[in-house]
Amino acid sequence: MTSLELAERLADVAAQETLARFRTPDLRAESKGAERFDPVTEADRAAEAAMRALLARERPDDGILGEEADDVPSRSGQTWVLDPIDGTRAFISGLPVWGTLIALNDGGAPSLGLIDQPYIGERFLSDGTRALHRKGGIETPLAVRPCARLADATLFSTFPEVGTAAEGAAFHHVAGQCRLTRYGTDCYAYGLLALGQIDLVIEAGLYAYDIQGPMAVVAGAGGIVTAWDGGPAQDGGRIVAAGDARVHAAALEVLSRA
Amino acid sequence: MTSLELAERLADVAAQETLARFRTPDLRAESKGAERFDPVTEADRAAEAAMRALLARERPDDGILGEEADDVPSRSGQTWVLDPIDGTRAFISGLPVWGTLIALNDGGAPSLGLIDQPYIGERFLSDGTRALHRKGGIETPLAVRPCARLADATLFSTFPEVGTAAEGAAFHHVAGQCRLTRYGTDCYAYGLLALGQIDLVIEAGLYAYDIQGPMAVVAGAGGIVTAWDGGPAQDGGRIVAAGDARVHAAALEVLSRA
Repeated sequence: MTSLELAERLADVAAQETLARFRTPDLRAESKGAERFDPVTEADRAAEAAMRALLARERPDDGILGEEADDVPSRSGQTWVLDPIDGTRAFISGLPVWGTLIALNDGGAPSLGLIDQPYIGERFLSDGTRALHRKGGIETPLAVRPCARLADATLFSTFPEVGTAAEGAAFHHVAGQCRLTRYGTDCYAYGLLALGQIDLVIEAGLYAYDIQGPMAVVAGAGGIVTAWDGGPAQDGGRIVAAGDARVHAAALEVLSRA
Repeated sequence: MTSLELAERLADVAAQETLARFRTPDLRAESKGAERFDPVTEADRAAEAAMRALLARERPDDGILGEEADDVPSRSGQTWVLDPIDGTRAFISGLPVWGTLIALNDGGAPSLGLIDQPYIGERFLSDGTRALHRKGGIETPLAVRPCARLADATLFSTFPEVGTAAEGAAFHHVAGQCRLTRYGTDCYAYGLLALGQIDLVIEAGLYAYDIQGPMAVVAGAGGIVTAWDGGPAQDGGRIVAAGDARVHAAALEVLSRA
């Protein structure tokens, strides 16, 4: 089984757990955050446990970095980076823009990435050699679209309250120059970027497991994902993803001052 | 053919036009608004034209109120209220939270409503006697959920910039008391309310065709849709929709001062 085939099987076992609980009346959300509502559900935990069990059988020497349980150190140099439900707030609201995120990191960068939205039945994936979207058995190549200027750009972010006050000000400075800004999409925004439907995704406060799957998908589609200072994105934090290097540079010009 | 069967056929003919253009690279958006970006596409126009053609054949005496063409006066007392794509900004961004909205108004109020999201393959409908959600051939009854207080409520709205400055302040006063606020859902939010997944939808600046389909769906699920002053919602404007009368009253308490 190739790593990409295994990534697809991981998404399949996660989907069994998430879909069984999506929109069920007895789904209960607990808050992980002391200050703000940061929900986690049995669906998050069960989906990650199912993926970890499959990895333990298929790749016992690979490491695991996941949102809901302890890290497993790698003996092979390869580490699976898992977010069972990115967008738990969307999940508990019945809104199918959450996704299961899977990446495989060789110690340098994520070489493979997958975003799965099983309620809609869409999967976005890239292993560095090919990048595709699949729905209803139909596969479409992923490819970003050109966008020269912020004034032509469609920008997505998860919340209007982006990061700290200074981060929020920088974000809204960019947003004010874009043609269209939309909120509330979680990981699905990176899929739309890789499909060439939007031009920019800007977020802050991300974890490694929030971004490694999406960054490999966007990179496979020809896009760029960096930190706001232009550095590597794989550890999370402040993230800017773009389909076109020109609009990425224009956003970075503003964001790097925050 | 019953009115509900006709509403489903209208949604079917609209979906042929919208899906043929959704996520296509040559989709062009023109802006209808002079001041802000208010896109309309050939998909909006073609979907409404297809619905109008079907109504002209099946119900030549009924009136039509639609977003993209002139009103047709009613000779029967019945008027079809059509929005071919509610959420054109989502549509041109590839995000499947847009919907085709259909209502049948008897001169007093919408007695039948339908929200169709054909990319996901979901339809929400009510004719006053039954209210259901259908996906993949599986029908689920629509029913709102109980919610006693704003502190327990999930609130959805399309933009964080709600209406005028005074309207925005009132909205954010309510949002600040809710457990969770999410943006970016257009008409899909009313479907989630009718499914019992969320508790409140608050918007401003709506047109009659934006709200009549959703209000009939929410009413059929047992919810309440009014203007911010508690008056009738069917002409659009400032809208508050709730699943539970208690949380509706709590929101109205704040919003009615705006």
